[in-house]
Amino acid sequence: MLYHLFDHLQQISDVPGAGLFQYISFRAAAAALLSLLVSIGIGRRIIQWLQLKQVGEVVRDLGLEGQMQKQGTPTMGGIIILSAILIPTLLLADLTNIYIQCMLLVTVLLGGIGFIDDYIKVFKNNKEGLAGRFKIVGQVAASLIVATMLFWSPQVQVKEAVPATSVEALELGLEDTDGDGWVRVERRSLKTTIPFVKNNEFDYARLTEWATDSPWAQFAVFALIVVFIVTAVSNGANLTDGMDGLATGTSAIIGMTLAILAYVSGNAVFSDYLNVLFIPNSGELVVFISAFVGACIGFLWYNAYPAQVFMGDTGSLALGGIIATFAIAIRKELLIPVLCGIFLIENLSVVIQVAWFRHTKKKYGEGRRVFRMSPLHHHYQKGGMPESKITARFWIVGILLAVITIVTLKVR
Amino acid sequence: MLYHLFDHLQQISDVPGAGLFQYISFRAAAAALLSLLVSIGIGRRIIQWLQLKQVGEVVRDLGLEGQMQKQGTPTMGGIIILSAILIPTLLLADLTNIYIQCMLLVTVLLGGIGFIDDYIKVFKNNKEGLAGRFKIVGQVAASLIVATMLFWSPQVQVKEAVPATSVEALELGLEDTDGDGWVRVERRSLKTTIPFVKNNEFDYARLTEWATDSPWAQFAVFALIVVFIVTAVSNGANLTDGMDGLATGTSAIIGMTLAILAYVSGNAVFSDYLNVLFIPNSGELVVFISAFVGACIGFLWYNAYPAQVFMGDTGSLALGGIIATFAIAIRKELLIPVLCGIFLIENLSVVIQVAWFRHTKKKYGEGRRVFRMSPLHHHYQKGGMPESKITARFWIVGILLAVITIVTLKVR
Repeated sequence: MLYHLFDHLQQISDVPGAGLFQYISFRAAAAALLSLLVSIGIGRRIIQWLQLKQVGEVVRDLGLEGQMQKQGTPTMGGIIILSAILIPTLLLADLTNIYIQCMLLVTVLLGGIGFIDDYIKVFKNNKEGLAGRFKIVGQVAASLIVATMLFWSPQVQVKEAVPATSVEALELGLEDTDGDGWVRVERRSLKTTIPFVKNNEFDYARLTEWATDSPWAQFAVFALIVVFIVTAVSNGANLTDGMDGLATGTSAIIGMTLAILAYVSGNAVFSDYLNVLFIPNSGELVVFISAFVGACIGFLWYNAYPAQVFMGDTGSLALGGIIATFAIAIRKELLIPVLCGIFLIENLSVVIQVAWFRHTKKKYGEGRRVFRMSPLHHHYQKGGMPESKITARFWIVGILLAVITIVTLKVR
Repeated sequence: MLYHLFDHLQQISDVPGAGLFQYISFRAAAAALLSLLVSIGIGRRIIQWLQLKQVGEVVRDLGLEGQMQKQGTPTMGGIIILSAILIPTLLLADLTNIYIQCMLLVTVLLGGIGFIDDYIKVFKNNKEGLAGRFKIVGQVAASLIVATMLFWSPQVQVKEAVPATSVEALELGLEDTDGDGWVRVERRSLKTTIPFVKNNEFDYARLTEWATDSPWAQFAVFALIVVFIVTAVSNGANLTDGMDGLATGTSAIIGMTLAILAYVSGNAVFSDYLNVLFIPNSGELVVFISAFVGACIGFLWYNAYPAQVFMGDTGSLALGGIIATFAIAIRKELLIPVLCGIFLIENLSVVIQVAWFRHTKKKYGEGRRVFRMSPLHHHYQKGGMPESKITARFWIVGILLAVITIVTLKVR
């Protein structure tokens, strides 16, 4: 809203400083600072309030060292993260931008589902929380809304090269200024980025073109992809959130990487120079993701080992959903297996553990385990590694994966 | 050296992949990955070897909780950091580049001084280490070499706008292509960046122009500045290094910020777009600082709380010296008080503590303290905050300062 105010001021008169607000880089930095200050500032009060309301997480006794000390630490700290994302975005981002609307929606919807889940667990004293199927219905519904917005909005386009002599180019009256026989057209497209490949781009429309040209068929494919990615990543974040600062720090690292990718993709000069798919209007997303990174880092102020608060599903479902939707919006979702590798490994460790246990139980009559315990971070904890060390090492692997993700854009 | 090999291969034939090495962004990412892997890979062996040699730090008993547990943790881990900086830089950077030569020199010289200091402390069992005056003589000598290289090398220039009708422009035969009456000239200059000011630039030559035009006078001023900054920052890093992961993480955050600043300053397209002083040839520094960041983060693998190794003066003097020299090379040294704010605060806390103690001792016959203990991180530790939490919060403040540093480039 500040953005719109200063934009208006800038148009009607020459207020000193108002011009700064037109720069995405400035608003992004301001959003990061503001979200840091918001989360640190309101964090203490919210934690006290949560403690007062007895919102202590009912910790299952897993026989881990130091684990029972966590009894009494309040959960639902995710509301600190949500506030620190929403306040700067509402103040500093262009709210007429479809991408920003999309991200705000995901934040509120997935945060809301997580909140209901936490609320039932804590206040209704029902350890199961929201029934699994309601949780999945909620996630799918949120994903479908996102898919609809991103597929049908006229604001969502990419810039593509088409032959200067094509009907489209001639109809638009585009001139081939650099004389290479190609002109650049902004148009709707389901193109996405694939790593390590020469042309580096893939069009989801090719999945249906053998059968039909109907946009509804394309939408169905796109919606399926969105549903799969959003639910997978948000459940991955949820599983990762089992150690002080682990999901928070990992999400901050992923967020910083997404910020770099979005800044480049949304800037005509930089995307051209670095030869990355240019996505008009998406630069605004940098403001949002900066708030996201600031919120995560600010939350670490209280969530770092030893944690004074846990994020709960309120936090983890929202973090995962935001990361997934953001990656889809900037058409980098196929990089998720690398970029969100920590979430993936944590998820896989559970799947492998359960599958192997069932398989061996059937075969030998006695279930066997691959890991001392799953998700993977508990495997190391059972092995005697201090919790703070495991978290630091998972972060470091996250940083390694982030660098590899960025390299894939260049290596082809 | 790999850079030179592939550069050569690229010129004589079309080896697949060799072309990648011409991109600074690719070599920087490769350097970051390599240094991460080097520090994690060789770290374990070096730590075992240091333990074998009984290089346990003789911990002074400060009466801090958990502090005596640190007894037996080996120090001199800085050699892990030094190796992880030097190996990728030697392999991936352009070694004919003056800035790279300058950074390599600082790394080796300050790392060497720190190593001698640690060696005396540990092996000669002399807790004082290298006598203070030898340490300062070493730092000053290293600074003077840096100042000489950066002042006199013909490779060190900035790009400046001069009137198209000036003698210089006419002599060089530069054409005013955009017709604004100015042309851009690469020339030697002592210009630097000052934050929050309209024109954003300051020329150190103005400090002497009232008296003389002699380059020797300019050199004297520049050398003094370099000596002051290098010794101040390396001592600041040294003081900050008193808690597991504190100096390492803070340096990594500062390094990432310097990487962004160097990438923009060294790239003609980006510096022009973002209106930042363009420094030809300095882009190569991004490769070095990426190795630096990777080395710090990789060292955290072992140095994060609870630490298995300390960096010692071998690490901290080098880290500080590298940060200072790098900031000077990309002409952002006046941003150091903000960017390296953690080092500054730690330093100030010691100065204030000592000064106040002496002052009150003289006045009241009994010394009084401002902090429970200095440097500042011990103040919080004495107050009962867990070590890992203090480190996390200092890192977060470091990130806040990094964002502010980047914002200063835009706000003027």
